[in-house]
Amino acid sequence: MKILAIESAALVASAAILDEDTVLAEERLNTRLTHSQTLLPMIDELVRKAELKAGELDAIAVSAGPGSFTGLRIGAATAKGLGMAWDKPLVAVPTLDAMAYGLWGCRYLICPIMDARRSQVYNGLYRFDENGALVTLRDARAIGMEELLQELKEQNEPVVFLGDGVPVFRAAIEEALTTKALFAPPQQSRQSAGAVGALGLELLKQGKTVTAAAFAPSYLRISQAERERARRLAQEQEVCHD
Amino acid sequence: MKILAIESAALVASAAILDEDTVLAEERLNTRLTHSQTLLPMIDELVRKAELKAGELDAIAVSAGPGSFTGLRIGAATAKGLGMAWDKPLVAVPTLDAMAYGLWGCRYLICPIMDARRSQVYNGLYRFDENGALVTLRDARAIGMEELLQELKEQNEPVVFLGDGVPVFRAAIEEALTTKALFAPPQQSRQSAGAVGALGLELLKQGKTVTAAAFAPSYLRISQAERERARRLAQEQEVCHD
Repeated sequence: MKILAIESAALVASAAILDEDTVLAEERLNTRLTHSQTLLPMIDELVRKAELKAGELDAIAVSAGPGSFTGLRIGAATAKGLGMAWDKPLVAVPTLDAMAYGLWGCRYLICPIMDARRSQVYNGLYRFDENGALVTLRDARAIGMEELLQELKEQNEPVVFLGDGVPVFRAAIEEALTTKALFAPPQQSRQSAGAVGALGLELLKQGKTVTAAAFAPSYLRISQAERERARRLAQEQEVCHD
Repeated sequence: MKILAIESAALVASAAILDEDTVLAEERLNTRLTHSQTLLPMIDELVRKAELKAGELDAIAVSAGPGSFTGLRIGAATAKGLGMAWDKPLVAVPTLDAMAYGLWGCRYLICPIMDARRSQVYNGLYRFDENGALVTLRDARAIGMEELLQELKEQNEPVVFLGDGVPVFRAAIEEALTTKALFAPPQQSRQSAGAVGALGLELLKQGKTVTAAAFAPSYLRISQAERERARRLAQEQEVCHD
């Protein structure tokens, strides 16, 4: 079973080709380069280096959100395009689940935080059970960082944080949780297509696929453009009523 | 603090650039391409993509063995060459330690196995303590797979295996340890420069560097060429004594 995986939900652009045993090829970049410039050439190169024929692929796994609107749209467009061209199903891998899966077997409560601006993070809470299966304790949500820290304080157990929310909120986390706060080491501190692909293979085995035509990312919140449009419309209505 | 990491001890060729927070750029290939063809262009590309200036680097971390003689020599030559050209210290990262570190925070006994041929594996045993620090229970060694399984049976606790020894010995492992045997998922099942770099940063903070001129990989066993030479010499001596 072989899968192509795409991750562009946040700052990291990453692609990987995996089978059930290992990663055959992976690249990840966490630079200022924009995903629209990096993602497709990255996939093209990996496919060439791994000498992958489209016919050998079982599915395309894509990091399905939440995350940056632009990033998610670039990932979705790329996955849908390749899925249609190659006639392959897509596997929608929840971004926060894949982040947690990158810490496979971890003994701590796992708390990915993606900076969602306006003092919020995209977050879910996870744990690995004794057999190495990922258990979701809290589904993906947009939550205020203060509220999340309050929730974690009440749990009173060690928590490992990862994601691009860490550099933003690290001081607040350490103040709130002191020694109960741990941080994933650099190789596991962000999204990666390797983790998306590995969890994607698990979902594929469970038959959880979607057609390239039907796939849409999960944004969780409405975009800034939509928020602004709604505010403008509301203001216009007020003006009309005057 | 920034580090360039190189991993070519076994079948995986990988390079990465990391800081203390995250991986800035990483590539890994587990294909039939030879390291002598892939490694240097890979580093060159990552340095360009991450817009890394040599002056920003604090050190070069290199997977220091055990492993394939050819792979280790290519990695060592590359790291030494870059270290000399850029005037940077090297950090020798034990290959098996880095493999274990790739499973940061894992709750199980960690057992990397690298196929060393002749029914042997290169192996060490590791555990993460409650604070997320890597503890070495058994130093790197070449050991017969049967002997290793006997040792693990006596421990009577869950063990997670990773490395290119897994596809070779998986059936034997499952027979010997039944439900106590777990296998790292694909994204964490082999060497990666990300893990070498992350552990390299830890060692760098402890001042554990070596000059590019002084660095040499740790082979653990003598090479096949040396074994054959020794046998030939012994035979010649026998002939002389006749």
